[in-house]
Amino acid sequence: MVEYYGKNDFSGILALVGTDLKGEREDYMSLKVAVMGYGTIGSGVVEILEQNREVIAHRVGQELEVKSVLDLRDFEGDPIQKKIVKDYKQIAEDDEIDIVVETMGGVEPAYTFVKAMLLAGKSVTTSNKALVADKGAELIAIAREQNVNFLFEASVGGGIPIIRPLQSCLTGDVIEEIIGIVNGTTNYMLSKMSFWGKEFDEVLKEAQEKGYAEKDPTADIEGYDACRKIAILTSLVAGQQVDYEDIPTEGISKITASDFKYAKKIGREVKLLATSRRVGDTYVCRVAPYLIPASNPLYHVNDVFNAIFVKGNMLGDSMFYGSGAGKLPTASAVVGDIVEMAKNLKNNLYLEWNPEKLELADAEKVQARYFGRTRATDEQIEKAFGVVDYIDVGIDGEVGFTTSLMPEGELAKRADALRTKGELSVIRML
Amino acid sequence: MVEYYGKNDFSGILALVGTDLKGEREDYMSLKVAVMGYGTIGSGVVEILEQNREVIAHRVGQELEVKSVLDLRDFEGDPIQKKIVKDYKQIAEDDEIDIVVETMGGVEPAYTFVKAMLLAGKSVTTSNKALVADKGAELIAIAREQNVNFLFEASVGGGIPIIRPLQSCLTGDVIEEIIGIVNGTTNYMLSKMSFWGKEFDEVLKEAQEKGYAEKDPTADIEGYDACRKIAILTSLVAGQQVDYEDIPTEGISKITASDFKYAKKIGREVKLLATSRRVGDTYVCRVAPYLIPASNPLYHVNDVFNAIFVKGNMLGDSMFYGSGAGKLPTASAVVGDIVEMAKNLKNNLYLEWNPEKLELADAEKVQARYFGRTRATDEQIEKAFGVVDYIDVGIDGEVGFTTSLMPEGELAKRADALRTKGELSVIRML
Repeated sequence: MVEYYGKNDFSGILALVGTDLKGEREDYMSLKVAVMGYGTIGSGVVEILEQNREVIAHRVGQELEVKSVLDLRDFEGDPIQKKIVKDYKQIAEDDEIDIVVETMGGVEPAYTFVKAMLLAGKSVTTSNKALVADKGAELIAIAREQNVNFLFEASVGGGIPIIRPLQSCLTGDVIEEIIGIVNGTTNYMLSKMSFWGKEFDEVLKEAQEKGYAEKDPTADIEGYDACRKIAILTSLVAGQQVDYEDIPTEGISKITASDFKYAKKIGREVKLLATSRRVGDTYVCRVAPYLIPASNPLYHVNDVFNAIFVKGNMLGDSMFYGSGAGKLPTASAVVGDIVEMAKNLKNNLYLEWNPEKLELADAEKVQARYFGRTRATDEQIEKAFGVVDYIDVGIDGEVGFTTSLMPEGELAKRADALRTKGELSVIRML
Repeated sequence: MVEYYGKNDFSGILALVGTDLKGEREDYMSLKVAVMGYGTIGSGVVEILEQNREVIAHRVGQELEVKSVLDLRDFEGDPIQKKIVKDYKQIAEDDEIDIVVETMGGVEPAYTFVKAMLLAGKSVTTSNKALVADKGAELIAIAREQNVNFLFEASVGGGIPIIRPLQSCLTGDVIEEIIGIVNGTTNYMLSKMSFWGKEFDEVLKEAQEKGYAEKDPTADIEGYDACRKIAILTSLVAGQQVDYEDIPTEGISKITASDFKYAKKIGREVKLLATSRRVGDTYVCRVAPYLIPASNPLYHVNDVFNAIFVKGNMLGDSMFYGSGAGKLPTASAVVGDIVEMAKNLKNNLYLEWNPEKLELADAEKVQARYFGRTRATDEQIEKAFGVVDYIDVGIDGEVGFTTSLMPEGELAKRADALRTKGELSVIRML
């Protein structure tokens, strides 16, 4: 990968730099940063570096300057225009640039670009959970070889500090459990359904109008986003690769306004949870909607907020709460990484995430209680699930119930039996 | 301070070491740790280092071994007995020991001992908020000169990671506000008063019986403990010394069961808060009981749990929640520091806390709303406080009310006027 070490010959580009966004000449040596992808998060990073310039310079001990921004668009008339470059190699080959921010999203071409930057001896931070879940182990290893850093605090929980706390604070503990509300879109939607009694389709439309949900909301509402995030967290606490494809994942698209009626009747809320629990030397993971009780601190996490509950074998319960998405909160986490990397320019901060794949424990063996609602008779319900507690919220011809503990593996069998009798929807209980 | 560099001549003591708690001979080089103060936290640290030995060794890349424990007691028959030393100089002069834990509490002799350890080139972690609030700036400076570390994660919020996240995560932000429930004893007491409708004296007795409150509970119930903790946090975000004596501090000893009746009527809880808010280039701080609404995440923090709400100018709202006290949670934070220091043995992790005193903004100028209850007439109330909202909870001859916004400085004047008419108790509203 020697090509990225070539001498910089973009003199035309270089003539543009050395000026900050205000157009002032920088006469002292500033630390040069490049941003790849000038979308929501990327522009947020530039905004924070500008707006909090002084305090950040003070913390780093040196001024930070955005030298280049990689984007296919031109941003004509925007002050950023003069920093736009079209080819990532211009950044990779620019020896002045020490720190690169990746906020493009998706595995490719982000992977190719980030790898090139690391191999060129630059530290990289990313907010891109797809990239980290897929290529984290490899990129961490390359960063270590190059004695630079690859950080990704913003890839999980947006602005919430969770990765660094796990890496440098909860290090006296064996992490027993992580339960996260790690997707702002779905938490916003579930909060609205709960509060207003609205149906899924209606709140999805609202969320899209407000920009909280994408035009194609699949990754959020089907739990794929949350799945990648819990794969990242589990990889970090286990110290080795967890493949997100191995994690059973269920989204919220089947949740209805009626589910909330039953949930409220038993003092619970419906939340999409990304879970990971230690079982011997490995972990068992699942992403699914759960009914959670008011005694759990996650019950109170509403709207676009995220929270990550972490249980250590010595620490006990802890929770990290904050803005899980949004331009500035997420960019704030990226800038936190930039500062950390700027303070450790030639010092690899050890992150353990071996490429060797961790075999997760069998999620079918987990015991759980379930909430169901069906049009079947009590007799049919009890034949399928044994002793249950009934919940009546006055919906005609339908009854809700909660089961006793049973293995996940038995649920499908029992549920199938009932489904043919009178429909059935099931939500797990925490 | 040359005396601490003297050659180690405690050969008798040295003969005892090199054995771990299980009595096994360590043939490889392990990193040696000393613990000063074998009380609740200190013994918790030894317990965690033993119980999580493997995972900690893996993270550090080297086994950790408790070599010496400083305590005046003998612990006869206890496996720790053979590690007990009586003179701190034995530890300071032991060149094998790289890391020292201080869990004695109080400013002296902890200060003398810790300073000696740092000057002897050892890294030190402490759970002692009195020491940190008083001597933090100086000890940080000594650690920097010696190229070792002085860390104190456990001094605020027990097991909750808050100091390192402020130092290495929220570094892209200007911290606008910190509001903490940072005292487990008082939060336990207030939770019990709220839940059971009990009076202060009764829950204090209970808390003492359960070991949640000290025999002399003054430091907790009068807010002195919380005051030192918010002084530490404010020093860290401001980067300079905040004297805890400058922070107006009020405890919970005047809170009654009746206050909770009014609070509940308006959907609020009473919590002892330690607050710090940025005002221009400085901060304004106060420790006092507050009525907080259910929309605030701190409302839901009950029992001995602590939580620290942090607002960044970019990040927005975040909160760190967990076990704020207790043997293992607090020791877990100490061990987290040990691991961090073990990974940075000859690398000072920069902490900014200059000894130059920060002049806090005038807390009397802060505008707040107040809740009051009194036996005075409506006319007298309105004469003193202007337009108020009344709250009736059916207590004979007494009425509750909430005021509009007014400066703290005016409160005393207005309250005094009313107090003479028909008693008055006042709680701030968040």
